[in-house]
Amino acid sequence: MIQDRFVPPSSAFTRSVPVRFSHCDPAGIVYFPHYFDMFNGLIEDWYTQELGYDYAELIMGSRYGFPFVHIECDFKVPSRIGDVINLTLLAARIGRSSLSIAIVCHRDGIERLRARMATAMMSLETRRAVPLPEALREGIESYRQRTTDAPSASAE
Amino acid sequence: MIQDRFVPPSSAFTRSVPVRFSHCDPAGIVYFPHYFDMFNGLIEDWYTQELGYDYAELIMGSRYGFPFVHIECDFKVPSRIGDVINLTLLAARIGRSSLSIAIVCHRDGIERLRARMATAMMSLETRRAVPLPEALREGIESYRQRTTDAPSASAE
Amino acid sequence: MIQDRFVPPSSAFTRSVPVRFSHCDPAGIVYFPHYFDMFNGLIEDWYTQELGYDYAELIMGSRYGFPFVHIECDFKVPSRIGDVINLTLLAARIGRSSLSIAIVCHRDGIERLRARMATAMMSLETRRAVPLPEALREGIESYRQRTTDAPSASAE
Amino acid sequence: MIQDRFVPPSSAFTRSVPVRFSHCDPAGIVYFPHYFDMFNGLIEDWYTQELGYDYAELIMGSRYGFPFVHIECDFKVPSRIGDVINLTLLAARIGRSSLSIAIVCHRDGIERLRARMATAMMSLETRRAVPLPEALREGIESYRQRTTDAPSASAE
Repeated sequence: MIQDRFVPPSSAFTRSVPVRFSHCDPAGIVYFPHYFDMFNGLIEDWYTQELGYDYAELIMGSRYGFPFVHIECDFKVPSRIGDVINLTLLAARIGRSSLSIAIVCHRDGIERLRARMATAMMSLETRRAVPLPEALREGIESYRQRTTDAPSASAE
Repeated sequence: MIQDRFVPPSSAFTRSVPVRFSHCDPAGIVYFPHYFDMFNGLIEDWYTQELGYDYAELIMGSRYGFPFVHIECDFKVPSRIGDVINLTLLAARIGRSSLSIAIVCHRDGIERLRARMATAMMSLETRRAVPLPEALREGIESYRQRTTDAPSASAE
Repeated sequence: MIQDRFVPPSSAFTRSVPVRFSHCDPAGIVYFPHYFDMFNGLIEDWYTQELGYDYAELIMGSRYGFPFVHIECDFKVPSRIGDVINLTLLAARIGRSSLSIAIVCHRDGIERLRARMATAMMSLETRRAVPLPEALREGIESYRQRTTDAPSASAE
Repeated sequence: MIQDRFVPPSSAFTRSVPVRFSHCDPAGIVYFPHYFDMFNGLIEDWYTQELGYDYAELIMGSRYGFPFVHIECDFKVPSRIGDVINLTLLAARIGRSSLSIAIVCHRDGIERLRARMATAMMSLETRRAVPLPEALREGIESYRQRTTDAPSASAE
């Protein structure tokens, strides 16, 4: 079986997640919806730790929501209890009120799964899309540029 | 906003799911990984109730697994606590050891989300793909044919 | 091993839940937090289907919350994928703004687990306890009386 | 409202958990079954990081299971998205094949919830209780002793 190698760009936002008993199913591998939950956690941490926006404040204070509009995911190598997997977030496309990212799950230089996720920014009050605030857009654009030089960083 | 109408083929496998408190997030709508959990439950019920295969027995007795290889999902209309949503399963393509399905979530004739999911059939013992048993393949093919006549049944 | 027999009072609120692949852990049995999620679903259905209160409306419309104050649970017999388990709700004690219930999980007349759960009724606006509305209290008291005649209905 | 102060014994095993969007319900607070999932993760980390037993290896290699027999939990102060909560594990009683622990969730010196959990050690092959291996028992007893001197360490 051919395996996809993946080395994250050095400045990319990467977090490690231990695969827990509770993530795994009777077949002994991660039950796939848990990956999407891990992705959401990674995005929260990216906003807070990389972009400098308090995610909880964006939701509960500013009353913004970031619903997903489209998700695609390729599952390549399963993960088992005790594995420590790495999740890397790459920014792909920044629209007026939308953001497309890729999340790559990898270990030992091998890609285990890759997701492409498009989100919209909306107001929880009006339930309508709102433009990304300028400072947030600039922060994401800056992140995108400094993480897309390396060939392995391709988000598509 | 343009809404996508959806009427399931009359013989398609459809189950209703009440949106519960536990499905919803602080924004008051279904937290998206829960949809994938609902989809997995629908597939279990489809095997057992429509195709006549005891899903638990396939996993624990025959030691087969059905990991997802690829998932795509378009989220169109959010769902809220108290909504009763309908999930319809459509068979798209039957390979040697793979199966592509679509799951449409709908209510009141409007599509709320649509997923395309490709699974492989594997042995939990050898961890290798195995061909779909002939009787199972025929059952799925028969289901596919009797649910694809109506124009609205298109799984792509 | 001695097993605890349980036959629910005939008028008690009982719902069946299929144990799914997603409920089970690598040991092949239900991962215990999922039971608490099932219990919450049972309580929702009890409010809506037995007491005649729309649970979603109580939360999102009237802005009430029902946080748990205390939970106890004895786990007696594990459940496996494919089992259909029954959950029966019994009302134990009705306070000014609190309610104590028991939930018994059983199958084939054998108790699998039993939980005692105390909840408070609160306002989501003021974040303070509120008295149970009189009609709701009467509905619960009536339920308690008609489900506590049989000796097996004891909620403690 | 009276609040329970809690300062963990200095050598107690404590881990921080960020309260995420996905933990919270439409009332904006942690949906209670997620606490039990956090507790299970804490126990895994305690085995691996404090006691020196690879939890994944105990389950998948040695085929041991640690099902819960009894759980009690008092919920005192709710937690909200963005809170970082601390979980401290205290060992209470070590039986032949059973172990009773307490887990205290706290922040800023205030107890938010406290659980008492009794587990049994069993073989996943025979599905029967097995005695705790001597070295494991000694490790737990040593942990218990070095974390119960301080008055605030009381696990009951």
